[in-house]
Parts: sequence; C-alpha cells; structure tokens
Amino acid sequence: MSTPTKINLDESEIPTRWYNVVADLPEPPPPPLHPGTHQPATGDDFAALFPKALIEQEMSAERYIDIPGDVLDVYRLWRPSPLFRAHRLEKLLDTPARIYYKYEGVSPAGSHKPNTAVPQVWYNAQEGIRKLTTETGAGQWGSSLAFACAQFGLECEIWQVAASYRAKPYRRTMMEIWGGQVHPSPSDVTDYGKQLLAQDPDHPGSLGIAISEAVAEAVEDPTIRYALGSVLNHVLLHQTIIGEEALLQLAKVDETPDILVGCTGGGSNFGGLAFPFLREKLAGNMNPTIRCVEPAACPTLTQGEYRYDFGDTAGLTPLMKMHTLGASFIPEPIHAGGLRYHGMAPLVSHIYELDLVEAISIPQTECFKGALQFARSEGIVPAPEPTHAIAAAIREALACKQSGEERVILTALCGHGHLDLASYATFLAGEMQDLELSETTLREAMQNVPIIES
Amino acid sequence: MSTPTKINLDESEIPTRWYNVVADLPEPPPPPLHPGTHQPATGDDFAALFPKALIEQEMSAERYIDIPGDVLDVYRLWRPSPLFRAHRLEKLLDTPARIYYKYEGVSPAGSHKPNTAVPQVWYNAQEGIRKLTTETGAGQWGSSLAFACAQFGLECEIWQVAASYRAKPYRRTMMEIWGGQVHPSPSDVTDYGKQLLAQDPDHPGSLGIAISEAVAEAVEDPTIRYALGSVLNHVLLHQTIIGEEALLQLAKVDETPDILVGCTGGGSNFGGLAFPFLREKLAGNMNPTIRCVEPAACPTLTQGEYRYDFGDTAGLTPLMKMHTLGASFIPEPIHAGGLRYHGMAPLVSHIYELDLVEAISIPQTECFKGALQFARSEGIVPAPEPTHAIAAAIREALACKQSGEERVILTALCGHGHLDLASYATFLAGEMQDLELSETTLREAMQNVPIIES
Repeated sequence: MSTPTKINLDESEIPTRWYNVVADLPEPPPPPLHPGTHQPATGDDFAALFPKALIEQEMSAERYIDIPGDVLDVYRLWRPSPLFRAHRLEKLLDTPARIYYKYEGVSPAGSHKPNTAVPQVWYNAQEGIRKLTTETGAGQWGSSLAFACAQFGLECEIWQVAASYRAKPYRRTMMEIWGGQVHPSPSDVTDYGKQLLAQDPDHPGSLGIAISEAVAEAVEDPTIRYALGSVLNHVLLHQTIIGEEALLQLAKVDETPDILVGCTGGGSNFGGLAFPFLREKLAGNMNPTIRCVEPAACPTLTQGEYRYDFGDTAGLTPLMKMHTLGASFIPEPIHAGGLRYHGMAPLVSHIYELDLVEAISIPQTECFKGALQFARSEGIVPAPEPTHAIAAAIREALACKQSGEERVILTALCGHGHLDLASYATFLAGEMQDLELSETTLREAMQNVPIIES
Repeated sequence: MSTPTKINLDESEIPTRWYNVVADLPEPPPPPLHPGTHQPATGDDFAALFPKALIEQEMSAERYIDIPGDVLDVYRLWRPSPLFRAHRLEKLLDTPARIYYKYEGVSPAGSHKPNTAVPQVWYNAQEGIRKLTTETGAGQWGSSLAFACAQFGLECEIWQVAASYRAKPYRRTMMEIWGGQVHPSPSDVTDYGKQLLAQDPDHPGSLGIAISEAVAEAVEDPTIRYALGSVLNHVLLHQTIIGEEALLQLAKVDETPDILVGCTGGGSNFGGLAFPFLREKLAGNMNPTIRCVEPAACPTLTQGEYRYDFGDTAGLTPLMKMHTLGASFIPEPIHAGGLRYHGMAPLVSHIYELDLVEAISIPQTECFKGALQFARSEGIVPAPEPTHAIAAAIREALACKQSGEERVILTALCGHGHLDLASYATFLAGEMQDLELSETTLREAMQNVPIIES
C-alpha cells in the first residue's frame, strides 16, 4: 500500500484561518430580509440573537478570517482530524477507485459540530454574554454547544425535540455531563411551547419549534444570546477548517479529488468540506465534481423551492433565501435526525443555483446497507447522517468498478454512530423502511411560506 | 504552552514488535497448572482452547515478538493512538504537575481491546480456525473480537453476562453490526448454562460463568477456538504496543514519568501501558512509581489472596497463580463492568508480589467525580473503567498542588464512555452509591478455591 491508512497533520500545521466562499463567488448571495418589512436585514436585526463579531462574520465578504488563539487551543483537543484512505473498503468493493474520508468523529461530541460551537461560545464570552440558548434534534449540536460552554464558563440551555428527548436519553446525559440544562420541546418554559402543549400534551416537537423556543428565551434578556448549529454563513465559515485540512492532507499524498460527496442537512458539514475545494476549482487548480447528498424523505435541494422562508416554525428569524420544503414542514421520522430540517443553508442553496454543485437524494435503507459494509471493513460505525455520504461514495466506487476508472473519491465522515445504535438495531432486524416524502405535507407547508415582492 | 496538546506518531513510527516483560523479570512467574493433576500445564493442555502460535506466546520468554504485517495493517485504522498533555485539566486543578494520558478510545470498538483481538483472530485464521467463541461483560471485549473477526472472515459467537445483555442492548447491536452472534449468559446453548437457568430463569450471570460457556462450546469442535480478552500473558503482550508508543511520544517532548497509574480489572490495560516502562525502570533509564488502581468493590490486588485459582466459575480452565477473590465471587454491580473480575493477571500479580508495582483501590463516586472534571476540561467522556485511573491521577495532581512539586503523571484513558452514559445519568442524579466489598461473599468464594500442594 503506497498511501498510508491515516494521513495526519501535525499540530503546527493546523489552519489558522477560516475561508469565506462569498469572496470568490461570481455573484453575491441574496441578503436575508427583515421578517416584518421584507427589506434587507441589517446587523441590528440580528443583534438580539448573536454577538457583534458573529454578525460581522455573517455579513462579511472577506476571503479569510483569522481563528482566535483561544479557539485554536480548544480545537487542539481533537484537531487536526485524520484523513483516512479507505483501503479496506476499496478491497471489499473490489474497486479501482481510491476513496478518502475526512473523519470528524474524533471530537469530544463525536461530530463536526464543535468546530463552530467553540468559536461561537468564545465570541459570545468576549462580549460578556452569560448564557447561550439553542435547539437540538438528535442531540449532536446541543452536546457540542454544552461542551464548548464548559470550556469558556458560559451557561447553556437547550431545547431538544421532544421525540428525541424521550427516545434518546443518553444524548441528554452527554449534554448534562458538560453542564448543559436540557428541556424537551415543546416545553412549558416559553409561551409558544405552552401553547403547543395545550393543543397536544404529547407533542413530538420539531427542529423549527425548538428554534422558536430557544430564540424566544434569548431575546428577552440582554445577557443571553442564541446559537445555531448550521444553515448560517458564519457557521459554514467555521466548518471550512475541515476542507482546509483535507486539502493539506491530500497534498501530502499527491492526490486531487475527481469527485467530492457530502451529506446535507442544514449544510454546514457539506460546506465545511466543499468550500475550500470549490475555491480551488474556481481558481482552476483542480476540477472535482461536487455533490450534495440528501435523504429521500427530506430532499430540500432536489425537491424544495428556492425562495425566502423562515428558519423556524414560529416565524421569529429573519427571512432567508434558500431551498425550502416550508418552515412548517415536519419530515418523516428518518434515523438521520440531523438531516431532518426544512431548509438548506442559503450559501449552499446559492451555489446550487449557480450550478457549482450537484445534488442527489438517497433512501435510508441503502444508506445503512453501505454503513454496514463500511463498519465491517473500515471499523468505524458511522452516524446515520454520514451514511448518506458513504452510500454515495459506494455508488461512485462501484461505477468505477464497472468502468475501470481509477477515480479519487473524497467524502466527510462527519460523526460516529455510538449514540445511534438503536437505528442499526432496527436495520439489522429488517424493520427499517424507506420513508417517502409526503406530498400532502409538503404542499401544505409550502402554502405557509410568505410571498415576497421582488 | 510549550508541549503540544496531542503528541502524535507517524504511521512509519508504529512499533513493529510487542514486548514480553517475562524476559526481564528477576524471577519467572509461577507456571499454570493442569486442573486435574495440578502439574505444570503443557502446551497440549491449552490446545483445545487456543491456536499453537498463541500458546507459544503464552509460554514464551523471548523479549520481543514481531507483529505480523497483516495485524499492523489493521492496527493502522487507529494506531498509533494519541498521547495527550492534559493542559486544560491541569489548569482546572491548578496543579504544577504535568499530566499525560494515552488515549485508546480512538479504536473502532472504543477501547484498548482491539489491540489483542486483532492478532488473536489473525493467528487463529492462520491455523484454519473457522469460528471464535468468547465471553463479554459490558461488551467492550465482545465488540472488539467481533470487529477483528470481520477483518479476517471468521465467525464470532459471544456469551454476554445476562444482566448486561438486558441492560445494555446497544453494545449488543455493536457486536451485531460487525457480524457477531450474541447470547445472554447463562444461555440455553450449553449444558452448564441450562443447568443454571433451571435453578434461576432470571439468572444475572457473571464473567466467570460466561467464560465457562464459551470454553465449553469451543472444546467440542476442532474448527472452533476460544479467545480471552485479558488476564493471560499473550493478551498482555499484545497490549504492550500502548506503552511502547507512549515511550516514543514522551521522548518527543523530552519527558519521563515520575508516576504511572493505570486501572486494573483483568490487568491487560495496565500491563500494556506499564510493562515497557517497567523495562526502562529495571534497566535504570527512569524511575517512575508504577501504581495499579482497582475498584473498592472488587479489590483483587489489595484484598485478594495470591494463590492458584481457576479463571472461570465452572473450573474448566488451567489453574493460574494470581491474586483472587475466589472464582465463584460475584462482585457488586459497580458501573465499571470491565473491572468486575475475580482474579488478576498472573503477570501483574507476580510483579506486585515482587514489589515492582504498588496498588490502591478507589470507590466509584470519587471516580465519577473525577470523570466529570475530566470531561468538562479535556472534553472526552471516559468509560467507567478508566475513571479509576483518572481519579488516581487527580489525587496525585492535587498532592503536587500541596507540595509544589512539578511531577510528571502518566495514565491510560483506555476507552470512551459513549455506551456507558446510563452510569453518568445515575451519578448526575445523585443516585450512585459506593458499593462495599461483601466480606461474606468473599469468605464463601475463597472457601471454594482449590488447595494446591506445593
């Protein structure tokens, strides 16, 4: 084997700045709009939610932004993360393709989420904020924010989608280990939550509802701010450290990708891996196909509409132009909880509209079949979300077997599945079903999307 | 910070041989005895259980044994494992001590166990064995063996202690993901299991009973062998890659340990870290204090007797001279399931008798208190077993704070706690108790230990 299995970087090689793809796009993304006036939102419109430094990053067109030293200190607990050559999966598939995967499961929370949780908490701490609120679904984001808050001494209050809160008590324990306070959402803590519980005491909740509750709590107190784990520009910015490291690692083994596949929920894992490669592609240094992979039951890019919509269900956030299934859309309960979001990051939506990236959707049983092949060859048990990326990589590798092409495939394994083993138990028992997109639910949700005069 | 947070080795620096401490001891360890004749056991006495190559390693006095290339290929999926400088824990404790921890949770199974599972399976595969049987408690060893069997195409059949089988379904799922077949023990598959179930259909099982069942299945078929995850010489041998790597990593930052602490259940994690450092100590190259840390509820070294006893409950294994609480001793249900074994590795017992190492015991609430401090500073959530090592390291670090000494503390964080979060939930709820060693149970168990004429 000429390429090593694990391609490491030294701590001294860790990238010291994030990459802002906005600087290199042929046209700027449409601005967010004020939810009341429908005019382009200003920094002030975000001031009750986020600290100034993050609002500046959200609106920035600077190509590079320096990573603060305190953030790098925490990153070093797990970064640089390893890039693996999937020698044993390639052998299992009998493919001439060379498969590389960037593994973010080495972080304390077990996913890529701490890459943005840590700087978000640090910037809030710099501006004297005492507490952060957020929402979480399966719990990856909530545990990442709790971990980051523990590093800088902030309190952390989390609304977890009630269905997950009840079904996955262990992820809640993880948040509590790091000092987080967790409520099921809808909760009896906010007016919106109380209203929904009055309608249905067993309400299963949704990400959109949990965002509404966390936002409502934050805007009431100037020492509290809100933190979002995906979708927004500054979140995707922080995640670009994934792609920057992968570029350095591939250069060490003298490879450039022919195709890059990443799973997309809110878009931050995908953007984090893809944007630095898109920069190289736009600069003519390489020419990879870049492909988003979304779940068949929540296909925002491939079946959603590109228009202004809210990020949350109650309509408290600014309006963002994005591919959406409608802010009131509640996806079928697929196992990849982190991909069950009605919208797609405005930046990912924009570059998809510009034809700079492709998108496909894959049903979940194909994803878990691929995950078993992966676990039995590469060892790591993937989280349900990146099984979509793995399934897409396996499709490509098998196409190479047919064609005889030695293509270089790059993907991101954005987290391990140690807290998602119930999903595997369902799959192994032959009880997992491929949930369809509900056309009726979609139609109803899209009717609620506001009409914006252009 | 002068020392990096993570001290990595390149793949090219991975040690290519295991270290056999027997070669350097002032006197050889007492031999195992045939269970019937009480005469020193020969290789033939182990032939129905283990392949020839492993029996040779079990009895070897060679100082170094080469690691086969196929084994190194699988090791590369996670090895070399990182050595961390615990900068953030040191700061939290306000100690002048420098704390290093070798982290084995990066393996696919999440612990040090694959270090021996992989070579054990490979040697069996070389001798044409079709299937391996084993026991497992919390499931760390069973999942490691299932993972290793998947790498070399062997079947894997696992008897899991019934109480854990029922309480921890997710670890069972992990074994099944890697293709393992899992029975609760006692099971209706073996005569011994049937006999115990007839007495008590809800029998909670024990490690000793599960070993008896796995051994019984193996000895009946020449294409099946048995694999043990700790205690035996060849298992400790394979684990020495931990200490060999740690030596190289500490040398990179120009450090030698003043004290080394490791948790001890069967002894393989401890031996794996400690033996290479013991070699250096015996050679006069460094002079660390080396300390075993065991749970207060299962204190084999500090309260057990050093005498010949069986490794299993039914008395099927050869007799081994070791510190034992009696093969029929069933420890209180502490959360560190991997430390609930009645005996201690004969090699660790022997070097303890030679006064080459020390031993202490720590109650579990102190361990979990230390684990929370660790998780909130270093990020990683430790498995219950290494919380004992962490608590001991924290004791040392706080003593340094008192004395002002800048001591170098080295420990092994042998696994993460992602599948043990229920233990943390119990602790966070204030419901964890410090279970005592039951003197009555101990006295009864010791009465069953065979009397050997010397």
